[in-house]
Amino acid sequence: MHARAENSDAAAFRAIDVIRKKRDGHELSPSEIARLVDGYTRGEIPDYQISAWLMAALIRGLTRAETAALTDSMLHSGEVLDLSELAPVKVDKHSTGGVGDKTSLVLAPLVAAGGLVVPMISGRGLGHTGGTLDKLESIPGFRVDLPLDRFRTVLRACGCSMIGQTAEIAPADRKFYALRDVTGTVESPCLICASIMSKKLAEGVDALVLDVKSGSGAFMKTDEDASFLSELMVETGQRMGKKVVALITDMNQPLGFKIGNALEVEECIEVLRGGGPDDLRELCLELAACMFLLGGRVKHLAEGKELSQTLLRSGETLARFRKMVELQGGDPSAIDNPSRLPRAKQKVDLLASRDGFVGSMNCEEIGTACVVLGGGREKKEDSVDPAVGIVLRKKLGDRVANNEPICTLHYNSDSRAAQAKKLLGQSFEIQDAAPAPPPLIHRVIGSSSK
Amino acid sequence: MHARAENSDAAAFRAIDVIRKKRDGHELSPSEIARLVDGYTRGEIPDYQISAWLMAALIRGLTRAETAALTDSMLHSGEVLDLSELAPVKVDKHSTGGVGDKTSLVLAPLVAAGGLVVPMISGRGLGHTGGTLDKLESIPGFRVDLPLDRFRTVLRACGCSMIGQTAEIAPADRKFYALRDVTGTVESPCLICASIMSKKLAEGVDALVLDVKSGSGAFMKTDEDASFLSELMVETGQRMGKKVVALITDMNQPLGFKIGNALEVEECIEVLRGGGPDDLRELCLELAACMFLLGGRVKHLAEGKELSQTLLRSGETLARFRKMVELQGGDPSAIDNPSRLPRAKQKVDLLASRDGFVGSMNCEEIGTACVVLGGGREKKEDSVDPAVGIVLRKKLGDRVANNEPICTLHYNSDSRAAQAKKLLGQSFEIQDAAPAPPPLIHRVIGSSSK
Repeated sequence: MHARAENSDAAAFRAIDVIRKKRDGHELSPSEIARLVDGYTRGEIPDYQISAWLMAALIRGLTRAETAALTDSMLHSGEVLDLSELAPVKVDKHSTGGVGDKTSLVLAPLVAAGGLVVPMISGRGLGHTGGTLDKLESIPGFRVDLPLDRFRTVLRACGCSMIGQTAEIAPADRKFYALRDVTGTVESPCLICASIMSKKLAEGVDALVLDVKSGSGAFMKTDEDASFLSELMVETGQRMGKKVVALITDMNQPLGFKIGNALEVEECIEVLRGGGPDDLRELCLELAACMFLLGGRVKHLAEGKELSQTLLRSGETLARFRKMVELQGGDPSAIDNPSRLPRAKQKVDLLASRDGFVGSMNCEEIGTACVVLGGGREKKEDSVDPAVGIVLRKKLGDRVANNEPICTLHYNSDSRAAQAKKLLGQSFEIQDAAPAPPPLIHRVIGSSSK
Repeated sequence: MHARAENSDAAAFRAIDVIRKKRDGHELSPSEIARLVDGYTRGEIPDYQISAWLMAALIRGLTRAETAALTDSMLHSGEVLDLSELAPVKVDKHSTGGVGDKTSLVLAPLVAAGGLVVPMISGRGLGHTGGTLDKLESIPGFRVDLPLDRFRTVLRACGCSMIGQTAEIAPADRKFYALRDVTGTVESPCLICASIMSKKLAEGVDALVLDVKSGSGAFMKTDEDASFLSELMVETGQRMGKKVVALITDMNQPLGFKIGNALEVEECIEVLRGGGPDDLRELCLELAACMFLLGGRVKHLAEGKELSQTLLRSGETLARFRKMVELQGGDPSAIDNPSRLPRAKQKVDLLASRDGFVGSMNCEEIGTACVVLGGGREKKEDSVDPAVGIVLRKKLGDRVANNEPICTLHYNSDSRAAQAKKLLGQSFEIQDAAPAPPPLIHRVIGSSSK
């Protein structure tokens, strides 16, 4: 599909013609998209032309073929890992981002313990959502900036490795994303799809499970938006010869109880030890089952779920995680004894103002409160405090009494705590009747049962 | 209307918020538009943000209020001339550009001879259309780059002056236009309106007659498009307290017979001597009548047309033009004896391939043929050959015999002539029946009869 072969008449290509064509709502050819992406990545097309094109693409939309061509061009702007020497099947999971969304830390060692290779290249926190890399870095010594050869070594040794995007991986996406961020062109499902899929497919995976979050704490607030993006990503992956399934999962409340980098690692260790919160454990089992199914390790989802439960209970998954931490420079004793993880100096409870049931949460505000505490970034350059965060004491549907704690803030700055507490005070709605708790998985898109 | 007063909370302004708002189809406040324009003009907002905004504005459209605010902000980005000391009423005409469209050279001295002041700031050729400045520069010695104080002196001395845009006039428009030119955001009526009106109103005129070209040689190919732009410009001018009328005039064939810089000056001198082609003379009389009416010099159009005829026949207009040429450094003997204007070395006729009537012309191609001969610019940096051009021997509806000349090419380069002749060969359609000649004036928008 990649259109470099058509580039022989390169002299005739003018970015402005492609901008005008998209502006007027016409479909671009794979060759036109490839030349736009290549020209921008090489610095031959200026920012101001690409930003005009991005705005036209956002408003006019991209067809499925255009989205696939954009994904393909960005994917091939850098190195596409060939991990075939490691294992016949490589599989990964990607989440569109949520609050308390920490499944990656469980899934990578779990699926590796089941015999598949999981080459996971992750991101940092974005807006109100947390980032896998920030969470991992709360483990003393853990390095996420491994060069690709070291990434291969860790994968060979324990079947999973978790690192950040390197300069070799989809450089076009990094350039496009930085420009989208400052030109109001982030919020396009087509551009989001191309960005996610190009990075993930550059990992050289054969199968990909997408966890598309939907609800008040997600970027997609409705199942309709989440479905649109999911279908786009599934089709784009399939066009490129990959097995892809998307699960639309609930983000109307944080996943698990803990939000904040070290707190979330701690909660993952609970799951890796066979315990942890029901919703977090359940979602990990579902996602792992999908990964095992797509990776050909099991014949149906139920078998995958059973395998996953066994691998958690047996301690094999925890051992695999401990080994990965050690291989990536982290202190394994912090896994054995999570009290060695960074801890905030102070705590304060947010109290309920009345009797009732937790009826709804503004989950995005809860995520923002964690950023305000220092657990995320307001600007790219900000550093992150690994220790701070929020521990929920109540989830949706739980009964709460007047003056009973709803959540506990872990903080290192009084002024930040005051600001976060104010935000959290507006984030929980207490009502008279118990609401029906939202289902964990809203919808599955793509054929996970095949 | 100008919103600088609201700028006190400048720290809170973020270009990206305004980009997103327009992207999502919402109306921007005058203050938001003013801050975007000011920020860009001062170099505080980068090209890539403005180009994204321009694309959003092109696709989503701007409301009348937004268009007026944009015009106002660009107008006030530089100096707004105060010519009140010269005369109580200053009036100008602007054309959206056509082929053989040379009325400015007649109108400025004609309306000045009638007692109004005409401070005309014009442009260069754009695409297939000619530019007033290029035409004037074919008069030996003529200077169009007068500083504003010299512009005032010429206006004081002879009532009209014709110069190019100076650095003081609407600098925001120059920056915006240069960016639109390379980002596919030229073709927006709202942006075109703001660009034209900001420059014209910076001249400090009280009244403005717009000659909006419609047809195969115009930027607006249909009367619908021309009407949309006309209404926008008329309303924008009126919102800013100016008297504005738009005439939608025919551009399905070149105006007059001559296309090319010196050739067009020559044809204007014919009109200034009381002769010249019917369509060119007639359009000059109509436009001048509108200018006299809007400028309060006459009570109705018929009176304005009569006055204009008298001023042409009496030789007063020619004398006024000669004086302006002299004051702007030009050689007045070239006006007395047009054979002193630059002449091409060679001529060649394009012959009809059959008997019949000229049924239609691709007027844009005829303009492009003149550019190909060297009479216009393919790139901004190109220099223009003042001597070359095309002289029509037949107009729409004229009978033509096989092998009879349709037009004559005046050229200085054999290869350019060959290329232009090929283009022209496709530009004239000869048919069996005589077509009805198109009306010169398609429509009038705005109240010229008041």
